[in-house]
Amino acid sequence: MKNINIAVDAMGGDNAPYEIVKGAIDAVNEFGLSVTLVGKEEIINEELKKYNFDKSKVSVVNATEIISTEESPTIAIRRKKDSSIVVGLNLVKNGEASAFVSAGSTGAVLTGGTFIVGRIKGIERPALGTCLPTTDGFTFLLDSGANVDCKSSYLLQFAKMAAVYVEYVMGIKKPKIGLVNIGAEKEKGNTLTKETYELLEQSELNFVGNIEPRDIPFKAADVVVCDGFEGNTILKFAEGLSSALIGIIKEEITSGFYKLPAAFLVRPFKKIKKTFDSEEVGGAPFLGLKALVVKAHGSSKAKGIKNAIKQCKIFVENDIVLKIEEQL
Amino acid sequence: MKNINIAVDAMGGDNAPYEIVKGAIDAVNEFGLSVTLVGKEEIINEELKKYNFDKSKVSVVNATEIISTEESPTIAIRRKKDSSIVVGLNLVKNGEASAFVSAGSTGAVLTGGTFIVGRIKGIERPALGTCLPTTDGFTFLLDSGANVDCKSSYLLQFAKMAAVYVEYVMGIKKPKIGLVNIGAEKEKGNTLTKETYELLEQSELNFVGNIEPRDIPFKAADVVVCDGFEGNTILKFAEGLSSALIGIIKEEITSGFYKLPAAFLVRPFKKIKKTFDSEEVGGAPFLGLKALVVKAHGSSKAKGIKNAIKQCKIFVENDIVLKIEEQL
Repeated sequence: MKNINIAVDAMGGDNAPYEIVKGAIDAVNEFGLSVTLVGKEEIINEELKKYNFDKSKVSVVNATEIISTEESPTIAIRRKKDSSIVVGLNLVKNGEASAFVSAGSTGAVLTGGTFIVGRIKGIERPALGTCLPTTDGFTFLLDSGANVDCKSSYLLQFAKMAAVYVEYVMGIKKPKIGLVNIGAEKEKGNTLTKETYELLEQSELNFVGNIEPRDIPFKAADVVVCDGFEGNTILKFAEGLSSALIGIIKEEITSGFYKLPAAFLVRPFKKIKKTFDSEEVGGAPFLGLKALVVKAHGSSKAKGIKNAIKQCKIFVENDIVLKIEEQL
Repeated sequence: MKNINIAVDAMGGDNAPYEIVKGAIDAVNEFGLSVTLVGKEEIINEELKKYNFDKSKVSVVNATEIISTEESPTIAIRRKKDSSIVVGLNLVKNGEASAFVSAGSTGAVLTGGTFIVGRIKGIERPALGTCLPTTDGFTFLLDSGANVDCKSSYLLQFAKMAAVYVEYVMGIKKPKIGLVNIGAEKEKGNTLTKETYELLEQSELNFVGNIEPRDIPFKAADVVVCDGFEGNTILKFAEGLSSALIGIIKEEITSGFYKLPAAFLVRPFKKIKKTFDSEEVGGAPFLGLKALVVKAHGSSKAKGIKNAIKQCKIFVENDIVLKIEEQL
């Protein structure tokens, strides 16, 4: 098997550089691949001193600038040529790395990915996938925020890309594909979902019909497809609502009638945390580019980064780009 | 003060006729208004025997048909002229009742409301409002499902109608109006939200900007405006996710490490139930019509129906239709 080298943005995310470098080294030690850490050389080298690893498998590429989450992605990508995101994406473009992982600015990663790495020929819009936790494992949500105004032809492509990704990276054969819609019947929904329904029905995908938002948390399908505005709403509303609900329950159990010590809640909430742990699945793959670009959560720790790198390895080993091309 | 008469669909909803008739009688006894119960006369009269009430305040209008939730709303409204929904809406149209409450088919209530009661002159699209529970009282969500494809001019009108409703029916002066969007900044979102942002900013409403879905459960605004596809997604996803989360917590606390008796959970979940109790607020008002039409939840019990009728009373007493007209 060919040696796989993954470029990692050492400067992106809330816990950079410490957790990023740690996660990258863990990935090297566990999976035997190579990583190229991109960012301020001195800082990265300082971090690397903390670990034991096969020196031939870790390289550092200097990048003096950092793109913050507050900057306009388009302007930042154009101007900050020496940022860790632009330099890392160029490593992929030039074939020096097979994939790129960043926990930095989502906008910059998406914009940079599209402009620097480039789209697969025939793909109208690359899309961001997210593994949404459910009561029974994960549902792969695509698009979760890259494309706010969509046509039905984009959504058909999202479904095809998601099917390949979930089959090969997550190991689910002939995954069930659902269309997020506000009614179960074919004729329900808006213009976009009605048109998309027709396309999905005619496709060779394992299309299981419309999925109502209330059924998503119970894993109504392996893949749920929607436009990025809708997908991002689901993602962010899930964050807010779970945090609100857990807050109420905690409050009631610890300060309400029972006044149980907060420690009592550690186990139940650990279970929830485990169920809903985004670190387990790595990051959000930006599908439709000529190579994999993964956006790890801004709050990623070493485990999240390690798993994002593992995701890249599986993606590369399974020639997902080629398989997506074949689907078009 | 003029006598207010509310038409009530005695046949609609999972708990008809028992809970509906009970709720209507409770409303008569508590609020001193009149109700007209619409539906199968014999059945309703049988139910009425169970209660004591001022006979001059309760009338029954016979309607022999029932529209089920499975039927196409447009066809059902056209064909079932003697259904409780059509007959009830006609009472409003003819001035025999000031408002109509139904826990029956949402589609039929909306379609029938629009065609029979009719839109306020100048209103492009009537919209369905829902009181969404938050950690700090309710947020009024409009549109929560009536209009799946929207223009920015509709959303501006939704905001204006919601502002009137929340100010007079819910008693919040100069309510804060937010636009549901996937980013906080003005330039974020899709074409619809960008255009709507401009309109809201130029309006005289108390517009507080974009509200990200993650902030909705923490009551980021008194009113959140969006298209009906987005609104319905939020509503239904909230139902599904809370039920999934509560299921996990219950499971873990009762069968997991602690094996506490299920009774232990009664109190904490009562608190949640109370926080998220839609029965407290009555139903979803369908705003923009010449009179109020309220869609009560399909699972409404007497309390929900009673509160929906109370809502109608406040709406009528405050001349909300007139106030909405003034806003245009």
